[in-house]
Amino acid sequence: MARSTSLELRVRYAETDKMGVVYHSHYLVWCELGRTDHIRAGGMSYREMEAAGVMLAVAEANVRYRAPARYDDLIRVETTLTDVSSRAVTFEYRIHNAESGELLATASTLLVALDRSHRVVKLPADIRARLDASAGAEV
Amino acid sequence: MARSTSLELRVRYAETDKMGVVYHSHYLVWCELGRTDHIRAGGMSYREMEAAGVMLAVAEANVRYRAPARYDDLIRVETTLTDVSSRAVTFEYRIHNAESGELLATASTLLVALDRSHRVVKLPADIRARLDASAGAEV
Amino acid sequence: MARSTSLELRVRYAETDKMGVVYHSHYLVWCELGRTDHIRAGGMSYREMEAAGVMLAVAEANVRYRAPARYDDLIRVETTLTDVSSRAVTFEYRIHNAESGELLATASTLLVALDRSHRVVKLPADIRARLDASAGAEV
Amino acid sequence: MARSTSLELRVRYAETDKMGVVYHSHYLVWCELGRTDHIRAGGMSYREMEAAGVMLAVAEANVRYRAPARYDDLIRVETTLTDVSSRAVTFEYRIHNAESGELLATASTLLVALDRSHRVVKLPADIRARLDASAGAEV
Repeated sequence: MARSTSLELRVRYAETDKMGVVYHSHYLVWCELGRTDHIRAGGMSYREMEAAGVMLAVAEANVRYRAPARYDDLIRVETTLTDVSSRAVTFEYRIHNAESGELLATASTLLVALDRSHRVVKLPADIRARLDASAGAEV
Repeated sequence: MARSTSLELRVRYAETDKMGVVYHSHYLVWCELGRTDHIRAGGMSYREMEAAGVMLAVAEANVRYRAPARYDDLIRVETTLTDVSSRAVTFEYRIHNAESGELLATASTLLVALDRSHRVVKLPADIRARLDASAGAEV
Repeated sequence: MARSTSLELRVRYAETDKMGVVYHSHYLVWCELGRTDHIRAGGMSYREMEAAGVMLAVAEANVRYRAPARYDDLIRVETTLTDVSSRAVTFEYRIHNAESGELLATASTLLVALDRSHRVVKLPADIRARLDASAGAEV
Repeated sequence: MARSTSLELRVRYAETDKMGVVYHSHYLVWCELGRTDHIRAGGMSYREMEAAGVMLAVAEANVRYRAPARYDDLIRVETTLTDVSSRAVTFEYRIHNAESGELLATASTLLVALDRSHRVVKLPADIRARLDASAGAEV
């Protein structure tokens, strides 16, 4: 079964808007933080992946907003790698208020592997193996 | 049939990331610009709607990224209001490179009507009528 | 003498630009984080200050960029409250790469106290006392 | 005498914060837009400069905030190139509400010329000549 990782962050003033809550596009940045943290927990940071010539570009993003996040709230992002194929990966996210436990949003992103010339490529075997392990796939 | 509006913008340096292309969350901001422009074309600006006590909060956002946008590119956002119900509206977006015509992304957002206390409310009749007209619904 | 506080953060992908380094406006957000952390360390969070009706609005900001910050770098923001007057406060910041120790930027911001109607006001005595204590002023 | 250029933009919802006004770091992005527009008016876009291997990195930024900008306001950024030296340029900005004429902020930025390896370099003669012409320097 897929292992999930958990990251906490505090809402920045810069992330709020005049409605008094977090502007909706910032949740995608929080997903990026959750994903980065998840990949790092697998033993190779995303920075190292890029240095090795493999980039993961977001090809699809879906977010459902359930309750607002507010300035200075402590937020918990739970990230799960739910699917790994030869050229793409899917992450799912559950974003909570870490203090009240309230579920604020759920999201998923599909990312495709690109080489330095931004062409879609197969994930190299070593990176694929780490991602498969993260996703709990049988390897 | 739903009428679509078209807005042009130029990619800001601040919107790019180290991959050399526009960071994916900014497309949601471009959708906001398209939506604002669409509402204004209906004869009442979103600013006026908020001043009248009605806010539209994003409840769901979906984006499919097809080709990258780059610094200084001229971008065209085509916005269509595809559904209006008593308490919610759905907008769809097609984002192109305005010079080459290439389709860069498609997106949709579902927004719910809130009052000043952030409670879900029915759209007031006058605002509903304008939105219905924008959506091409028979009124 | 003024006491300084220290905050660590990790550079987000979203904060980089096509030059491959952090886009310069984000340093002001990092200063905000340092300032928030500094105020919290004084015993009353900025969120509580706002709830009590006092806002601190940035009236002046100055940044000197000395070396670039890069994706995934661990950053340390040192914040000092260097001046408190009846209606304004000045914070100074030193931003380092936390791993190499390299100084990346120095900054200062002047903030004025506003009430809920956004009028410049005197800092209430209790808030002033906390800030004076942070600044190491004789009280 | 230095020639100034003028650019208009409309405040995005994403640029506001919970105080109901534009968050202060976004003014630096507006300065970037003014600067880009100013350089383009000189006959060579900044994108072309980068393609030719010359980047301008912000080394210093100073902003004085005088009055708030609000959602949907039409903003006018007046940009002047006030100094050109062999390796650096200084731009100054006056940011107004375009409808009321009110001055909202003044700013200046010092930028240094970098090559593709991010080393400080002399501005190439052709670029220097264009910038000198923009700045109204005697050439």
